[in-house]
Amino acid sequence: MTAVGDDFAATTVTAASPAYPRAGLAASLAIETLHGSLSDPALDSMNLLNEIAQHHPGAVSFAAGRPYEGFFALEDVHRYLDTFCEHLAADRGLSDEEVRRTLFQYGRTNGVINDLVAAHLAVDEGIDADPESIVVTVGCQEAMFLVLRALRRDERDVALAISPTYVGFGGAAQLADMRVLPVRSGPEGIDLADLAAVAGFARHAGFRPRACYLIPDFANPLGVSLSLQQRRRLLEAAAELDILLLEDNPYGLFPAAGERLPTLKSLDTGRRVVYFGSFAKTVLPGARVGYVVADQPVLGPDCRLGVLADELSKIKSMLTVNTSPVAQAVVAGRLLEHGGSLVAANVRESALYARNLGLVLDGLARRFPAEARTGVSWNAPDGGFFVVVTVPFATTDALLEESARRYGVLWTPMHHFYTSREATCQLRLAGSLLEPEQIDEGLDRLAAFIRAQ
Amino acid sequence: MTAVGDDFAATTVTAASPAYPRAGLAASLAIETLHGSLSDPALDSMNLLNEIAQHHPGAVSFAAGRPYEGFFALEDVHRYLDTFCEHLAADRGLSDEEVRRTLFQYGRTNGVINDLVAAHLAVDEGIDADPESIVVTVGCQEAMFLVLRALRRDERDVALAISPTYVGFGGAAQLADMRVLPVRSGPEGIDLADLAAVAGFARHAGFRPRACYLIPDFANPLGVSLSLQQRRRLLEAAAELDILLLEDNPYGLFPAAGERLPTLKSLDTGRRVVYFGSFAKTVLPGARVGYVVADQPVLGPDCRLGVLADELSKIKSMLTVNTSPVAQAVVAGRLLEHGGSLVAANVRESALYARNLGLVLDGLARRFPAEARTGVSWNAPDGGFFVVVTVPFATTDALLEESARRYGVLWTPMHHFYTSREATCQLRLAGSLLEPEQIDEGLDRLAAFIRAQ
Repeated sequence: MTAVGDDFAATTVTAASPAYPRAGLAASLAIETLHGSLSDPALDSMNLLNEIAQHHPGAVSFAAGRPYEGFFALEDVHRYLDTFCEHLAADRGLSDEEVRRTLFQYGRTNGVINDLVAAHLAVDEGIDADPESIVVTVGCQEAMFLVLRALRRDERDVALAISPTYVGFGGAAQLADMRVLPVRSGPEGIDLADLAAVAGFARHAGFRPRACYLIPDFANPLGVSLSLQQRRRLLEAAAELDILLLEDNPYGLFPAAGERLPTLKSLDTGRRVVYFGSFAKTVLPGARVGYVVADQPVLGPDCRLGVLADELSKIKSMLTVNTSPVAQAVVAGRLLEHGGSLVAANVRESALYARNLGLVLDGLARRFPAEARTGVSWNAPDGGFFVVVTVPFATTDALLEESARRYGVLWTPMHHFYTSREATCQLRLAGSLLEPEQIDEGLDRLAAFIRAQ
Repeated sequence: MTAVGDDFAATTVTAASPAYPRAGLAASLAIETLHGSLSDPALDSMNLLNEIAQHHPGAVSFAAGRPYEGFFALEDVHRYLDTFCEHLAADRGLSDEEVRRTLFQYGRTNGVINDLVAAHLAVDEGIDADPESIVVTVGCQEAMFLVLRALRRDERDVALAISPTYVGFGGAAQLADMRVLPVRSGPEGIDLADLAAVAGFARHAGFRPRACYLIPDFANPLGVSLSLQQRRRLLEAAAELDILLLEDNPYGLFPAAGERLPTLKSLDTGRRVVYFGSFAKTVLPGARVGYVVADQPVLGPDCRLGVLADELSKIKSMLTVNTSPVAQAVVAGRLLEHGGSLVAANVRESALYARNLGLVLDGLARRFPAEARTGVSWNAPDGGFFVVVTVPFATTDALLEESARRYGVLWTPMHHFYTSREATCQLRLAGSLLEPEQIDEGLDRLAAFIRAQ
């Protein structure tokens, strides 16, 4: 995305020209004739943040919730491809020709590694998923769109989402023309009274609340997790309100200390939970492979019973046809090399993220001792990538730009995670991508920036 | 996609149960509460055809328009990855760390091989495309959805499409809730009088016709190409009607004889043409990489001038985030190994497709000599994958099933390519995937089937 220069403008007849549009010299489009999402700042917020980052390459960035890059290796990718091909031959009994067809030809829309994904879910998450209820997608982002597209019949269908929340959920909803109603976060992750109130309000106003989206483990952006009791209550509430739960779990493998809590899906006895998985943080972002477990029964015409995954697959067949099997092979190779377990595959990564989270929390405490804090506080997540800092001033985008330019440190203004986009006094820090000395230097800069406000 | 067995039904409370839905035992969904596309047979037609094919693995298949598999090789993919990494280091001057980041980290939404795609378009197609006007997508299918999503502001926005046409275009339009109006094919590829009539009718009825989709070279399914004169006239008509042209070009590299004609985009002086490209047939379907050239000026708020590609990129950021850079690297490696030219890269493939098309046409002529044809005829495309055969009976899906079961030969009933889906007396043959002896055997079986009707 770049600005278009003078050269372009000079050769183009714009809408201001009297000759437009009949002259046929230029097919110019006005933004207000394009889809509404394109006029909404939400779709542009990530670009805006990226642009600020690009203009300040020397800044220490706590902004991007990206995985650590130090373990990436080209030879691993080569080996993963070979490992998956050997698996296809040895374990599935495919001929050389069939192996090549599986990797290189048009393939099954639902995916070619569903059995391995199901094995991982069984081993690491206690989720008993039929491979046929899994759709392998182009990252978790595509999975969200598939589910929202399926659930949005007309303008009465609305989604609920924990607030603040991951920007991509609202973006996917916009592409499906689906309204999202925010549900308040509570000290235990989600405010169940507000969930009931919002769902009730929506029904009363003639809407159909279909599902509620949340990240129960080390959420983006708040970092908080739902307690086990809160998970059980949420499942009961979803049944009571007759809505689905959309559980997104990109960070669950990275506890900083203590036991991992069971996913909602593993506790779900009523098929209430649609489960989104991502391999971006556990294998490679560059594979762009995610998936969705959608085992909800669907009553079709002639009372034929199917599962939601079948319907998502139909949509996917017209959206991306299938997920690159070469990319799927990369993910499969890593799974196979660790007995199907992502926990086993991510021992190094998990330790690094725990260490970095600790460095951020300890570093904040050293720089803002309790007795001298002057309005600066932060939360203490049990894992994941994110910490939220509350400061005594509004964290606007303009202030972020100033922080980058004058202090050399980047962070994410929290208003980007709220539908209202009203300025807040909070900022999100992610230490996942950084080395210890960068965290140290970055926190020095952040402290200088905060104290100067 | 499989039927759900008894086991599943036994553990599920269905809508027929009096306890549903308040008991919370099962979140069941009725198909009529899901997006309308899911109740439309169009989205399911490819699945239906695939199912027939799967049930008859011994049949010779002229059904799938898939590339030949005999040239696929795992070692090529390994080498392409290395070639692209060497290019990033040698030609773009990236450090090892930056190379790994480019391939494995979250990346640029628009793509990381746009310069190589632009070079290919210059060398092979005479298209002068700014890399910034290109969005690299998850196959051409995603590109279609991006464009339709952008152009569909509300229910008044409609697309036009040549009829019969590629099933995926209508599918993508359904996902964007965009109506498609069919435009008649003519002996020269498109009936320009009908194009004007349909666009005029749409405007008169209060719709906004935004664009017309077609495949000017060796079209799917008809195999026909637009003459040079027809291309020029179509560009004039588009300017006159003030619509965009959506040019899809998956088969243009495969002429059976003679010169390739210039693409619409290379003749387009008014930025009327949005150009869709696919690497599925020229590199690997399994890479799932395509692209769109969208250099149309977009007048944004504050009269800021951008290009349509920027808007598509915003949509893509919320749909698939970015196209797997690992998959892009595979495409880039092949381009780099042939000086950026796909024509050079596909010398073997092009010769094979020309040979196979000739074998199908000659084989039909031998089996149905003119003096004894009894109502069987076919067209003679100048290239590509497809031939359309007209027979003296309706080519229903039931008859396809019978052809597979009793005669061991698969083809595609032509009604799948029409919006009306009314039965026709035509079938589509693709010989692209087959060996000469399979074509011979398959045509014997097809002739037996046709004569038996």
